[in-house]
Amino acid sequence: MLAILHPNTALDSEEYRQTMHYLENLPNVSVRVHEVQGATQRLTEIYLLGDTKPLNKEEIEALPAVERAIRISDDYRILGRHRDDRRQSGFTYNGVEFNQSNLNIFAGLCAVDVPEHVDMMMQALEDHGEVCTRMGAYKPRTNPYSFQGHGKGCLPWVFEKAGKHGIKVIAMEITHESHIEEIDTCLEKLGRPTGVMLQVGTRNTQNFELLKAIGRQSTYPVLLKRGFGITLNESLNAAEYLASEGNANVIFCLRGMKTEAGQPHRNMVDFAHVPAVKRLTRMPVCVDPSHSVGSREQSPDGILDVMHATAQGVIAGANMVLVDFHPKPEKALVDGPQALLMNELPAYLEDIRLCHDTWKKRQAIYQRLKDNTPE
Amino acid sequence: MLAILHPNTALDSEEYRQTMHYLENLPNVSVRVHEVQGATQRLTEIYLLGDTKPLNKEEIEALPAVERAIRISDDYRILGRHRDDRRQSGFTYNGVEFNQSNLNIFAGLCAVDVPEHVDMMMQALEDHGEVCTRMGAYKPRTNPYSFQGHGKGCLPWVFEKAGKHGIKVIAMEITHESHIEEIDTCLEKLGRPTGVMLQVGTRNTQNFELLKAIGRQSTYPVLLKRGFGITLNESLNAAEYLASEGNANVIFCLRGMKTEAGQPHRNMVDFAHVPAVKRLTRMPVCVDPSHSVGSREQSPDGILDVMHATAQGVIAGANMVLVDFHPKPEKALVDGPQALLMNELPAYLEDIRLCHDTWKKRQAIYQRLKDNTPE
Amino acid sequence: MLAILHPNTALDSEEYRQTMHYLENLPNVSVRVHEVQGATQRLTEIYLLGDTKPLNKEEIEALPAVERAIRISDDYRILGRHRDDRRQSGFTYNGVEFNQSNLNIFAGLCAVDVPEHVDMMMQALEDHGEVCTRMGAYKPRTNPYSFQGHGKGCLPWVFEKAGKHGIKVIAMEITHESHIEEIDTCLEKLGRPTGVMLQVGTRNTQNFELLKAIGRQSTYPVLLKRGFGITLNESLNAAEYLASEGNANVIFCLRGMKTEAGQPHRNMVDFAHVPAVKRLTRMPVCVDPSHSVGSREQSPDGILDVMHATAQGVIAGANMVLVDFHPKPEKALVDGPQALLMNELPAYLEDIRLCHDTWKKRQAIYQRLKDNTPE
Amino acid sequence: MLAILHPNTALDSEEYRQTMHYLENLPNVSVRVHEVQGATQRLTEIYLLGDTKPLNKEEIEALPAVERAIRISDDYRILGRHRDDRRQSGFTYNGVEFNQSNLNIFAGLCAVDVPEHVDMMMQALEDHGEVCTRMGAYKPRTNPYSFQGHGKGCLPWVFEKAGKHGIKVIAMEITHESHIEEIDTCLEKLGRPTGVMLQVGTRNTQNFELLKAIGRQSTYPVLLKRGFGITLNESLNAAEYLASEGNANVIFCLRGMKTEAGQPHRNMVDFAHVPAVKRLTRMPVCVDPSHSVGSREQSPDGILDVMHATAQGVIAGANMVLVDFHPKPEKALVDGPQALLMNELPAYLEDIRLCHDTWKKRQAIYQRLKDNTPE
Repeated sequence: MLAILHPNTALDSEEYRQTMHYLENLPNVSVRVHEVQGATQRLTEIYLLGDTKPLNKEEIEALPAVERAIRISDDYRILGRHRDDRRQSGFTYNGVEFNQSNLNIFAGLCAVDVPEHVDMMMQALEDHGEVCTRMGAYKPRTNPYSFQGHGKGCLPWVFEKAGKHGIKVIAMEITHESHIEEIDTCLEKLGRPTGVMLQVGTRNTQNFELLKAIGRQSTYPVLLKRGFGITLNESLNAAEYLASEGNANVIFCLRGMKTEAGQPHRNMVDFAHVPAVKRLTRMPVCVDPSHSVGSREQSPDGILDVMHATAQGVIAGANMVLVDFHPKPEKALVDGPQALLMNELPAYLEDIRLCHDTWKKRQAIYQRLKDNTPE
Repeated sequence: MLAILHPNTALDSEEYRQTMHYLENLPNVSVRVHEVQGATQRLTEIYLLGDTKPLNKEEIEALPAVERAIRISDDYRILGRHRDDRRQSGFTYNGVEFNQSNLNIFAGLCAVDVPEHVDMMMQALEDHGEVCTRMGAYKPRTNPYSFQGHGKGCLPWVFEKAGKHGIKVIAMEITHESHIEEIDTCLEKLGRPTGVMLQVGTRNTQNFELLKAIGRQSTYPVLLKRGFGITLNESLNAAEYLASEGNANVIFCLRGMKTEAGQPHRNMVDFAHVPAVKRLTRMPVCVDPSHSVGSREQSPDGILDVMHATAQGVIAGANMVLVDFHPKPEKALVDGPQALLMNELPAYLEDIRLCHDTWKKRQAIYQRLKDNTPE
Repeated sequence: MLAILHPNTALDSEEYRQTMHYLENLPNVSVRVHEVQGATQRLTEIYLLGDTKPLNKEEIEALPAVERAIRISDDYRILGRHRDDRRQSGFTYNGVEFNQSNLNIFAGLCAVDVPEHVDMMMQALEDHGEVCTRMGAYKPRTNPYSFQGHGKGCLPWVFEKAGKHGIKVIAMEITHESHIEEIDTCLEKLGRPTGVMLQVGTRNTQNFELLKAIGRQSTYPVLLKRGFGITLNESLNAAEYLASEGNANVIFCLRGMKTEAGQPHRNMVDFAHVPAVKRLTRMPVCVDPSHSVGSREQSPDGILDVMHATAQGVIAGANMVLVDFHPKPEKALVDGPQALLMNELPAYLEDIRLCHDTWKKRQAIYQRLKDNTPE
Repeated sequence: MLAILHPNTALDSEEYRQTMHYLENLPNVSVRVHEVQGATQRLTEIYLLGDTKPLNKEEIEALPAVERAIRISDDYRILGRHRDDRRQSGFTYNGVEFNQSNLNIFAGLCAVDVPEHVDMMMQALEDHGEVCTRMGAYKPRTNPYSFQGHGKGCLPWVFEKAGKHGIKVIAMEITHESHIEEIDTCLEKLGRPTGVMLQVGTRNTQNFELLKAIGRQSTYPVLLKRGFGITLNESLNAAEYLASEGNANVIFCLRGMKTEAGQPHRNMVDFAHVPAVKRLTRMPVCVDPSHSVGSREQSPDGILDVMHATAQGVIAGANMVLVDFHPKPEKALVDGPQALLMNELPAYLEDIRLCHDTWKKRQAIYQRLKDNTPE
């Protein structure tokens, strides 16, 4: 059961005190308070866990501080979309809004290599009005003897360049909780020229200790990649680890599943799950066409499979695109063969915008159908 | 090696005789002649199999009847798209054209049940100008005690109704070679009021004897569903069985892969392979969103997952949509829960057309990029 | 519901007439009679299908011809092992017994090539007292241009040699119903020097029309291979197709699953399902280590993976081993690299016997535990 | 390239100095020193990484401190079994030996709950002469709201009881690097009454930061579980992370793969990989039948599937069995339904010993074959 308090209920108010006294004395029920800071108001949600079946929804709603109560399923209590659940979704970070209706594009380098390439990438983004990018500093690799990323050493110049080019959010994978502080310290020292979205890779989707560490901070939002060998339900439960520790600013990223059914693609593209994740949870949904497809093959229609996969995500309502570009793919240290080229950026952005607009038109088509259908 | 003869080369011409004499005397090479009847001309293709590595392309092209020669890979010799392969793709059947550029919609009943429902379905299609449908008479079922379809008993009235409503092509699954004759006999007796596209289901994708039997006739084109538990390469090889027996009028249908990675969908939607199949072969590509998704769940944007999956196939260039509708899904004998409703047909058709148009616009975007890119 | 009649109940007896009259008049219930010819008696089983929930077990058992009634689940009605199901399992064919307790070894050639190799194989089997073998005449191949087996042409000399060497049962894959008659005609003409077990390959596990055709004859028992890309439940349902048409002499063969989780093996060895199949059904269970493992790799203990996989199947109670041998693997037309060598046959047979004996000892260990455990 | 020095080569010897001087000056080659402490001698291995193709094996072997050189593949340099690789495998920890030839059984509680159950378990082990067990204190759970284990709070009494009952090694999963110190501190404070093998679970197989942290200590050996959704090659590479940081005392644990092909088992039992892992690496191999099978279902032969799976692992040469027992499974906090019962322990141990002996007999059978086979 979830009890949502009246907006801006003060924690030292009599209403709050009475309400909590009642809830905390329910037999076999534990109480967990979750604060949500929205654009205009602060919302307090109280999760009642344990033996909640006997609870009476109306009685809970009669408590002085409670606005309404929602029966929630066991799965993804905080991030889930429950019956009659009208809670807000999405968040704003460093001036950029993320929700289930809009679209942000994170084109950038899979792995940071040299300053020149980072600069070329960011310059191109700036030229096209983009304020987000991806930049990999910490790279988890299957083989221990492969290049593992430049790590914290590259952070200062990456962040400085981002500031120079008006980049507001960098998606950056971390693989250890200490990386949070490395990033935070560096950003603080530089006067926070840009922002960072902490990215958790598919090999760490069920690294619950890392998720809990990230969840305990709320400075940085999180981009959680789906586990490539587990069910969607298990990956969504992993996202809930972040929220259960306090950070519900989570974007869920589809990146392809590991099965030979996906050949000739590197992974089995899973973007048909875009609407499924939006239905099951309140998280904005990102697609990563680069790692899903994993090559620059193109079809006779002159369009690369990576671009087709992108369009498939966006036409179904994806809210974010994470994609590899590189000025000189042949010199990229990681995943060069799948990177798009700088001269492809404008057409690619145009394609994405066209598909996003088409998605809106599609919504209108079905809205008219609904309007014209008697109950 | 494939030698393509000059169009309309007569089989009794001296050029042909000389050419064949040369080819048939190549050491360790066997010769296979394949006739392609196009809209305006007849094309003869000669496949050279066996020890073809030593052959000299220029020498072959110098033969009097040969227009050009193509080195082909071992896989999908006839249906494949080989390097420098500019052969036509697609075909016309009963007045309807099928190729890798256009789009045909086959909405209909997964399983034929009663005449009233067939009539309602076809009437709706006629009202919207559609001339294709799907109608299942022979149903392969996992459990031997489940309903197996009305079989040949329903053919006469299904075909008559099709004729009445201007339906030109019915996609109809067959599970045994005898069904070809049952269909042919019935159509012949009725004066061929409509046409049939023989559909091979996912459980029979590697039923090579059925494929060979279908391949030996060329009256009816074929819709081959991908095997849900094998690689794409293996399914494309299965398609080649049809062509190797003489029938290259094959449409390849993506219908989702069987893996729990697909949950909450019934199968793992595989429509990212639309461009891959078009690149690897010259077959038009169909998508079956109904069996891929398998439910009527909808996302908060008001659009059903089945519709989103359809849009994802079409935005990437799909050439055919095979989709389950039913006037009364709760009374459907097979797969009712995934069927779309009659009142959803107009919006669904509008959605598909919008996405197909958007695909064309996307092609234009990338064509401009190519035009503006120096070699 | 399954009603088992008293043994040897005559179909023209008054008891039978009365019983059938009652059963056939049950509302919404259809009646299906299944005859089982055991070694010493004939058993009639009557399946009651449809709305059987309201039926009273005691009332059915009170009918004059009924010995006892069993509530059966929907899945695998005939082949399944239902609660309180003490029906016999297994069968005898051409003097060889097949059941869930004993073990038969079918070593032989994956694909018949030349008479000399067939002779060498059978001679070796005769030398070691083996009376079963495998010999592939019809080979379904992924690629239409690969060698497809010698077909019916080789049957006469294969069967003659089998007779000469005292082979009683040859497991032989068929891919089309016409092969049944080809085999039958040939055997008949030669005076039935040997017997054949019809094998259905993994690509045809859900070729229901082939299964029905095989199920309609009861001359030859069947070896059904598990589908490599479907669930166990689906494969067991496929076996039930054979039984539902009249032939319950079915052996179920595990042969590995198609998933990259199986690497470095060709398939994912699935022999842990030996006890599961024996629990769910009454079929004897065969293991095919050659196609599961697919190579001759060996571990530092000096034992080939194929042999280890065999031991794993047998130690868990497998009842049949289907395994590829070849006198000259480098000359084998199909799957040479996985074949065992003639000189390995004696050690391999000894290994299998040792493991089968160990399985019996294991049963004794747990029987003692059960005997010493109070209820 | 791997250069193995003469045993007990002193690091301050002239031979060592000269050898290192030569190696460190090879162009484009980096040098990594790895120390192996065997039972009777210390071995120094020097890994040459980078551009090693031009190196001459004989030249390296001519260096004064080098005994022999081995060309190694890129994968699993330290743990791998390379061509002509006769290095020792295995290690001794707290008086218990682990190698690719012997067998240790770790029966115990999946999750520690109450002292009474821990005591009952350890008492039973002591009664049967067993000195190893499994005890879960830190439990990673899919759902963040599930019980996560008693954590470090239970360590003191678990370790004390272990000491009391003569337990020498406890396999204990850790999910965060801080757990190493928690365990170490607790053991130290208690005077090291027992030993711990650090277990890494399947969700952390590619948590490279955790692996590196564990690899940096060499006090405790490691039990690495295979990733349930990645290839074997990827899991073996993960093991190499441990070795690359300095700890090569690693046991590799098969625990079933996550695919619906495994149903009705919880996972797809993968014990056919026992010989494959022993061939590819020098690690002892453990099997975990409890998590693979995941139920107490039993076959008509009276043997539980968990026991059959165990036998399958051992008959193929498994070196360790990790298995869940519980005195009162219905009260177990985690995975009760798959636990074996205390009264089953003696029969289970007898079964395992019988199978391990049978494996040795099987080795003898094939050794005789080899002895009798001319080269």
